[in-house]
Amino acid sequence: MSKISDLSRKREVISFAAGEPDPSVLPRKIFGELMKEVFEKVELVGNYTPADGAFELREEIAKFMKKYDDVKTDPNKIVVTIGGSQALDLLGRIFLDAGDIAISESPSYVNTLIDWKQYGARIVGVPVDDSGMITDELEKTVKKLKGERKRVKLVYTIPTGQNPSGVTMIEERRKHLLEIASQYDLILVEDTAYNHLLYEGQPPKTLRSMDKEGRVIYSGTFSKILGTGLRIGWLEGPSEVMDLIKMVKGPTDMCASTPMQYLVIESLRRGIFEDAKKKALENYKMKRDIMIKSIEEKLKGLKFTKPIAGMFILVWLKKGMDGYAFAEELLEKKGVAVVPAAAFYTDDSGKEVIRLNFSMVPPEKIEKGISSIAELLGF
Amino acid sequence: MSKISDLSRKREVISFAAGEPDPSVLPRKIFGELMKEVFEKVELVGNYTPADGAFELREEIAKFMKKYDDVKTDPNKIVVTIGGSQALDLLGRIFLDAGDIAISESPSYVNTLIDWKQYGARIVGVPVDDSGMITDELEKTVKKLKGERKRVKLVYTIPTGQNPSGVTMIEERRKHLLEIASQYDLILVEDTAYNHLLYEGQPPKTLRSMDKEGRVIYSGTFSKILGTGLRIGWLEGPSEVMDLIKMVKGPTDMCASTPMQYLVIESLRRGIFEDAKKKALENYKMKRDIMIKSIEEKLKGLKFTKPIAGMFILVWLKKGMDGYAFAEELLEKKGVAVVPAAAFYTDDSGKEVIRLNFSMVPPEKIEKGISSIAELLGF
Repeated sequence: MSKISDLSRKREVISFAAGEPDPSVLPRKIFGELMKEVFEKVELVGNYTPADGAFELREEIAKFMKKYDDVKTDPNKIVVTIGGSQALDLLGRIFLDAGDIAISESPSYVNTLIDWKQYGARIVGVPVDDSGMITDELEKTVKKLKGERKRVKLVYTIPTGQNPSGVTMIEERRKHLLEIASQYDLILVEDTAYNHLLYEGQPPKTLRSMDKEGRVIYSGTFSKILGTGLRIGWLEGPSEVMDLIKMVKGPTDMCASTPMQYLVIESLRRGIFEDAKKKALENYKMKRDIMIKSIEEKLKGLKFTKPIAGMFILVWLKKGMDGYAFAEELLEKKGVAVVPAAAFYTDDSGKEVIRLNFSMVPPEKIEKGISSIAELLGF
Repeated sequence: MSKISDLSRKREVISFAAGEPDPSVLPRKIFGELMKEVFEKVELVGNYTPADGAFELREEIAKFMKKYDDVKTDPNKIVVTIGGSQALDLLGRIFLDAGDIAISESPSYVNTLIDWKQYGARIVGVPVDDSGMITDELEKTVKKLKGERKRVKLVYTIPTGQNPSGVTMIEERRKHLLEIASQYDLILVEDTAYNHLLYEGQPPKTLRSMDKEGRVIYSGTFSKILGTGLRIGWLEGPSEVMDLIKMVKGPTDMCASTPMQYLVIESLRRGIFEDAKKKALENYKMKRDIMIKSIEEKLKGLKFTKPIAGMFILVWLKKGMDGYAFAEELLEKKGVAVVPAAAFYTDDSGKEVIRLNFSMVPPEKIEKGISSIAELLGF
């Protein structure tokens, strides 16, 4: 995947390979002025914050979770991280040792799977359909592992606008997931990276807001609205867990960048986040619609997901095709970059699947890119 | 230690507990204007860089190492990290498993020791004197471990302006260290955090520049000159090692903050680093001199280190005293914060030692703080 990312940066290609905001949507000018002000006014902007982040930022995040998730929490139960990636890495660090089992959706965010495997964990996948993780399958899996006397350390889910599938878990499944967690004493990791990129309907309730038993650890990020480059995310969860996270966090990196923490503080306080979100939603919804329409018209009969949230669409190539080989050929012959999705799956069921991103590609190139895919597939 | 750091932030105390630049020395106004420019001009400033950092930054770092260390290297052998802390953490991540042995100076930088222990490593200490790590002792230790068939995975050293001792390794010892490394096939980790805070004489040659066999991994940071808050450091070393670092780095945090990477790029290109360094040297040398004079006058007879580089001075309280208890009492009764140095030692030989920082305390408070220490000690 990183080879394809590299290539797509170097050549003038149409890239469906990203997982990022469109730079033209980010409020760069406003950020620049804000930074000037922050560097002038905040005396300690060039110094460390505490390892868990500036108190003001943790306060703003607590308000943010109240506002958007109807969750009442406390700045002391929040740890600011280097984006959502480090949030998930820190969970691997405190929970997972060699041989431990973590359950994820299959497919799921490949970086988390790789990272947790680096700690020696075995990842067991539960399939996803258009309504999100198939919780009946989760229950079967958990029961089976219990029968084998194997303890599940974490259950990882991206309930809204999932990466890579783009699907959003329906409320009934969310309830079921929490019931299973309660019955089998499981800890859930809720990755909310795409929660603010919702293009249809009312925001689904977060697992964290539905949880009555303190089983949900919430992983958040500002990357998808304010920019992945800031590297500001957070973890929120039960005090016992957060105290451990605080212990291990400091030595790994001291803290997240102080100027970036203040950029987020002021973006939340001054409504810059809200404005950026509005602009992003408008832009990405338009591009999602163009992409779906193009796929329906040009890739007739191929299975694909229709996301109501997030940045991604999965497309199933013809049975037996190899997504890696196809992606390479597509880049070489047509100058179009896509991500083969096989690595997102915990088994080999995703070989013929590719992931398309619609957020970062200019709208006028979407149709052209999908046409190239159609041509290579012989449509 | 973190308890003391917290306290010293909250109350109006004289703090010798920091390990950071003086905020009044940092070019905050220039940084603010630079950020405004960067956010306007760099289209992808809000997006990810490659996991190993923006190519332009790695290019600038390669030039930096040529200029200051006379080391010829390559942007592809450099990985940009979240400050020096993450550089050292990543080394722990790829080299150290449960039961592995790493050698450090004793005392040494406590965060590295804690971090590497989190990977299950056992840290074996080699004592330090006014000429740096006592390399004869290192050789004995390595020989002994070899006799026990125990493999030393890493040897960690901060040769210049060491934290916490403030001492700088003399060239003869540096040569000896490299000879031992060659003889016993060791990998050296050279932490250069304080190399640019040199108050006397010519810059000592770095181990990296003296190394003919590719045994030295170089850990660098801009924290001590441009600000700890930026969180930009790097690792440089043999390709085999750097390739592994690149593999594990991405999933842990994707990349260092993009705006902060550009802040460093432009600071290096426009001479802002050089100016900031000049200002820092002037300011910290003056404060170091005041602190040494105060200690000589007010704490007569106590052993202490006289650094030619770095930010720290170690003071040995009277034999049998407990540095922790003393630090607590000093904070409570006199409002002066110091760091008990025991945790920096790999054995219990540092119980009566405290660490004083001179970079972050205003000059007019140094004498007063040392007087308070003298009073509490009954001088």
